[in-house]
Amino acid sequence: MKQSIKTPPTALLEAVELIEPLLQKRLESFDLPANLYDAASYAVVNGGKRVRPALTLMCCEVVGGSRDLAIDAAIAVEFIHCFSLVHDDLPSIDNDELRRGKPTLHIHAGEAMAVLAGDLLLPLAFELLSNGQYTATQQSKLVRTLASATRKMVAGQVYDTLGGLPEHLSAEDGLKEIHKNKTGALISCACTLGGICGKASDAHLKAIQEFGETTGLMFQIVDDLIDLQGESEHVGKATGKDADAGKKTYPGTIGVEESLCAVQSLQKRAEEALSPLGNDAETLRLFNLWMAHRTR
Amino acid sequence: MKQSIKTPPTALLEAVELIEPLLQKRLESFDLPANLYDAASYAVVNGGKRVRPALTLMCCEVVGGSRDLAIDAAIAVEFIHCFSLVHDDLPSIDNDELRRGKPTLHIHAGEAMAVLAGDLLLPLAFELLSNGQYTATQQSKLVRTLASATRKMVAGQVYDTLGGLPEHLSAEDGLKEIHKNKTGALISCACTLGGICGKASDAHLKAIQEFGETTGLMFQIVDDLIDLQGESEHVGKATGKDADAGKKTYPGTIGVEESLCAVQSLQKRAEEALSPLGNDAETLRLFNLWMAHRTR
Repeated sequence: MKQSIKTPPTALLEAVELIEPLLQKRLESFDLPANLYDAASYAVVNGGKRVRPALTLMCCEVVGGSRDLAIDAAIAVEFIHCFSLVHDDLPSIDNDELRRGKPTLHIHAGEAMAVLAGDLLLPLAFELLSNGQYTATQQSKLVRTLASATRKMVAGQVYDTLGGLPEHLSAEDGLKEIHKNKTGALISCACTLGGICGKASDAHLKAIQEFGETTGLMFQIVDDLIDLQGESEHVGKATGKDADAGKKTYPGTIGVEESLCAVQSLQKRAEEALSPLGNDAETLRLFNLWMAHRTR
Repeated sequence: MKQSIKTPPTALLEAVELIEPLLQKRLESFDLPANLYDAASYAVVNGGKRVRPALTLMCCEVVGGSRDLAIDAAIAVEFIHCFSLVHDDLPSIDNDELRRGKPTLHIHAGEAMAVLAGDLLLPLAFELLSNGQYTATQQSKLVRTLASATRKMVAGQVYDTLGGLPEHLSAEDGLKEIHKNKTGALISCACTLGGICGKASDAHLKAIQEFGETTGLMFQIVDDLIDLQGESEHVGKATGKDADAGKKTYPGTIGVEESLCAVQSLQKRAEEALSPLGNDAETLRLFNLWMAHRTR
């Protein structure tokens, strides 16, 4: 049983296999300067775990839709994620030279190109959502959901790197606010988009959304723990970096033990959120379990 | 008569008066960290001419819609324009310290905040388009139009600052490609969005679009001429800067006389594009005439 928790679930592996070649293919479908295409492609084809697009595909299936319906929405979410990584890595922000063992885009292609390739991925995501595959009503919901999640993600990055949190928040609540915005919002959005693509009922969409918010916050706490404890070659960047950079982390704020408790409690809450979906949500339950126990 | 050409037309002044306070008001409607709101507000309330949102309002009226219907689309376009100015000014791109006589955002609030405030304005624009004011079908068209124009704008900025133009293009055609993408696409988009908000017929939408493309290219050539010949206090930045920076300009490529001819010819073509709209398009004709003759 322990093995099954540590191994990525089949549904994730299948979703990644489906989505991986399509990320580049969709990028190719846009009319772009060759140098800009190269930079965007470098940013997107980056060895990422593809957690977000996989969630979009899985959530679409879980509510009864065909996975194929969710492909463009899944790619849109991953484009937004990749844009955020490129800009976060910039010298003026996190100043990272390495991501997943490869030079970051501004090291590879220069800072101007990194700014502009990030800028490009954002409208491409919205173009994908409005390419005619979805009904007008779906498009409207998809765009609203993705746009507000992107706003929150940017706000979270501001909180994380430049401050600005409401002063009345405790250290833990402040950190939760950062994580909810910076990471949770887009993961939750990935789930919701899948539900919209699969034409989920309101009750199911609500369940999916709650699952996404909870599992999204959990994802970031696990990331904090991996950053602190993980092996450098697994993480693909120097570990302990966040703490060294003075960034607020869960283990740094409430301790490792408490952070592990928080993960456990969020994992259970995410599972509970899925109850309206019954057995249909089994793939999401397994995924959530793996997310809680992943070590990379 | 000469006076009327040199003075901004009443329709523009009215549109600017309507839109100016709403730019800030819409920004306030989003839940944002205070520091991020301040930076975005600095970027948006910037003394801009508001040509794009004014065009959106005017085009909506010209096709028979009420101006109020086009307000959110107009603000969305201006948010995209402001985002592009903030990122273009960054040290790694154009490295401008002054815009319209004020320190640029990265001078005022730091480079990290300038990157992130620019990043923010983009999703806000799409959130505005999907706020429920428009029908789902309108939203779909609005989003597709704005997203593809933003993609082209970024591509144009890449051409302008980092190269990547197809090699077979002549110097003049290459320059036209830069201007069409970098400036023309968003101005044309501003017009088209107005047409969509006003539920224009296909024929009228096509006319509006063609007008936008033509007047958008003309706008940038006039900008090049102003940069070369204008008085510094009018332009709000050092003039001759583009030429000094080795940027390709129309007067630098085909000469001042030829550039003036191009303006004249584009002004006429834009006017011709409006013919399906008959007398209803008078405000756009006057606007176009003013655009061709403006000195700031």
